[in-house]
This record gives sequence, C-alpha cells and structure tokens, in this order.
Amino acid sequence: MTVRSRFFTEAEGQAVGIENAGAAGDVLLVCEHASATVPQRLSTLGLSPEVLSSHVAWDPGALAVARLLSEKLDATLIYQRFSRLVYDCNRPPESPSAMPVKSEVYDIPGNFDLTEAERFARTSALYVPFHDRVSEIIAERQANGRKVVVVTIHSFTPVYHGRFREVEIGILHDTDSRLADAMLTGAEGASLTVNRNDPYGPEDGVTHTLRLHALPDGLLNVMIEIRNDLIADEGEQANIAAFLHELMGKALASIDE
Amino acid sequence: MTVRSRFFTEAEGQAVGIENAGAAGDVLLVCEHASATVPQRLSTLGLSPEVLSSHVAWDPGALAVARLLSEKLDATLIYQRFSRLVYDCNRPPESPSAMPVKSEVYDIPGNFDLTEAERFARTSALYVPFHDRVSEIIAERQANGRKVVVVTIHSFTPVYHGRFREVEIGILHDTDSRLADAMLTGAEGASLTVNRNDPYGPEDGVTHTLRLHALPDGLLNVMIEIRNDLIADEGEQANIAAFLHELMGKALASIDE
Repeated sequence: MTVRSRFFTEAEGQAVGIENAGAAGDVLLVCEHASATVPQRLSTLGLSPEVLSSHVAWDPGALAVARLLSEKLDATLIYQRFSRLVYDCNRPPESPSAMPVKSEVYDIPGNFDLTEAERFARTSALYVPFHDRVSEIIAERQANGRKVVVVTIHSFTPVYHGRFREVEIGILHDTDSRLADAMLTGAEGASLTVNRNDPYGPEDGVTHTLRLHALPDGLLNVMIEIRNDLIADEGEQANIAAFLHELMGKALASIDE
Repeated sequence: MTVRSRFFTEAEGQAVGIENAGAAGDVLLVCEHASATVPQRLSTLGLSPEVLSSHVAWDPGALAVARLLSEKLDATLIYQRFSRLVYDCNRPPESPSAMPVKSEVYDIPGNFDLTEAERFARTSALYVPFHDRVSEIIAERQANGRKVVVVTIHSFTPVYHGRFREVEIGILHDTDSRLADAMLTGAEGASLTVNRNDPYGPEDGVTHTLRLHALPDGLLNVMIEIRNDLIADEGEQANIAAFLHELMGKALASIDE
C-alpha cells in the first residue's frame, strides 16, 4: 500500500481515467479538470456545495465535450478523476496553484497550511500518475511509429472577478503554435468568437501539460478553452464538439499537406 | 515505459535501493544522499570529477555507516541510488534545493534552466518512488502491529563556505524531539562533540523525510549528521557506527521504559 494507493478508498479507485484506449486516431485528448469530485479523505475542503460544483472545482462541460471529440476523432481520452482543487494536474508542484489556497474570490480552507506529507500524498496520488500515464501512452505510440497530436480540453467561466469575457473559444499555445495557427485561420469568419491565448495564455502558466508532453518531442499540440455557458447542456456540447471537430480536422489536414 | 522507467538505462536500474528488507528491528534507516552516481542521460551535469565526488554530490561515508548500523540494529535500510544533485530526496519539489542550480560555492550547469518536463522526469523517477517506498514499508509494518523508528543518516563537510565546523555529530529533529533528546542525554560526556540541530536544523528545511514519514503518525525519529572527515575509511566508519549504535540503543531503551 503506497501513499498513492492509500489516498483513495477502494470504491473511489485511482486518479486516472482513460476512454477509447485502443483508438486509432492521432489525437490524444487530455482533460485535467474533468471532475469536481473530492476524495472522501478530504471531505468538502471546507467549501459549500455551490463552490464545489462551480468552475472553481472543475471545468464544467469539458469532459462531456472531450468525450464527444473522442468519438468523432477516434481519439484516446485521458482525464483526471478528481477535482483540480485537490491537485491541479495542469500545474507543476512548485506552482502555488497546484494546491491553491485561493481560487478566484474563494478561499479553499482544505488547502490551508498543508503539511509536506499532505502535499506529497497529493503529488504522488494525483499528479505524477496522471502525467506518467500520458507519457506512457505517447511513448508507446511513438515506439509503434504513430504520430501523436496532444489536445487538451478546458472550459472557463464567463464572468471572472466580476468581468464578462467576450471570447467564446480560446485557442491556446506555448512556443509551438502550428496547430493553433491553423485552427485560428480556419476559425476566421466563424459565428463564434475564437481568440488566440485568450482569456489567458502561456504567460499565466496554463500550458504545463503541453510543456510536459508535446514541446519536448515537437508533437503538434493545442489547448482548447471553451466558455462554459456555451456547453451547459448536451445539445450545446454537441454543437461545440461539432464545431471543434471540423476546425481541428481542417487544421490537421492543412498541416499534413 | 513511463517517464520513470525511461529515465534510467536498463543497466542503471531504478532509484530505490533496499537492504535487509526482512529485518526484524524497529528502526528503519533512510539514506537520501547515499550516492554520487549521475544517470547516464545527464552525463556529468557539467561538473568536474572533483566536484562530482565531493559532498556536493552526495554524503560521503553515510551509506557505509548506514549499512553497518543496518547490521547491528537488524534494521531495513532504504537509500537513493543517485546523486542529490539530480533530485535531493530530502527536499520537496517546490524547494529550490530539490534540483539545485548552486550548491555551496559550485554552480550546477546541468540544473540550469530545467524545463518543466525535465523537472517532472526527475520528480517522477527519483523523488516520488523513493518516498512511496518508504511509506509503503512503514504502512506494511504498522498493518502488522510493528513499531517503526525512522532514522535518517547523513554526513556533512567539515569546511563549509571556508569555515570549519566544530560539531562532529549532529542530532537533528523537527517538532518531535523525543529520540533526539534521549540521544543527546546519552552523549553527554562523550569524546565526540555531539550537538542538537547543528550544523543546521529544521529551519533550514532539512527535515523533509522526517516530516513525510515520522511526524504524521507520531513515529519516533531522528536525523543523524556525521562530519565526513570522521568516516573517511572503513575503520573510522566502524568506530562511528559503534558509537551511534550504542547511543541509539540506550536512547530507545530509555524511551521504552
């Protein structure tokens, strides 16, 4: 029984969720903020049910859209089964937002004064196995001569610190903008407001997963941010997934040419 | 092939070394700075052979003394098989000295400007499996109703930043000083200079292993620092091991009473 295996109850299972593992497509979908679930041992982290079901705890709608894309693209999907408030898998352990004491305007009491042992337990149970698994999937495919395209799926709140965000879809990238550029070109004239590195970008430390898994080997990559009021129900999720599927398909085809 | 398994060559093996795994004694010996070995993929870290064999890269003599104590105490010994310069397992990932860019007066070029992917690889390959394994050993023993006493073995350089250190044995502790107190009492009048939290102490962030594995469950614990000029050869190592064995035996007996 390692720290990792003792962190969760038997019923809770482990941190990493994988769907469509045998998919043939090049795209690997990653969803770090898929879930609002807090492991039993951490109870509610001191938060109200409202905050615990809000964007503070997860990216509402992101997993649903990622699942639809997984089908459409025949893409493997890997996601984190627990809340970003326990460990934000899109942040390295040295980032204050890996186990945040505050998120937007909300204090996170369950993250106050974490001991080194508590931080280690979360790092070992949530962060390291998640990215070990992503890297394992990528390495296996590379060993088989397959291409890999890393696409992370996120959602963002329409109102942040009281300010409304006009952007509807953010196409985010780090130093490698090939896929993002192609998607932004494809989105010109679209009915949705699609912006580059908006509502935030690499300077805000949000491209950790891309930095871990795409940049070192030069894999095509993009981080997609969807305003969460646009994916509040299944119909909307299907519309956005269809939009992104077309955009990504055209972009990847244009890069292949 | 995870990040972890790909970090080392097949010949290098993995990060954690264990000796006397089936030992019946209560003490669990931990040696985080046992080795000066740098994994092949990191070459020399840009350092000269002199620096790479100095206290900068490891705690000279510590593993040898720990092995002697392992025999004398019938204690399991767990040690890190690679240099502290690759990852210092007595530091959390958020500490600047986990992957230091400078150690004493020496720049560590191989640690300059590490990417997030490089930091993750070291955290995943060296730090997490080491402490997962320590915690696993402790949990197994606790599940079997056994007592566990956590003792970490270190050495320090006699001259640091040009200043000679008078202390010969440091008995270090964090908030739980029971075993350290008993050992310091036992060392009164000894021929060696044995000091509390000297040449450094918990305020310097050196008690990470104790904080991870001993403090949460209230296990007896101590960190032993030996001036490395006193354990430069086998005869000296045997003398110091005998001294520490007696000191620890008496201290543990006095606490049991």
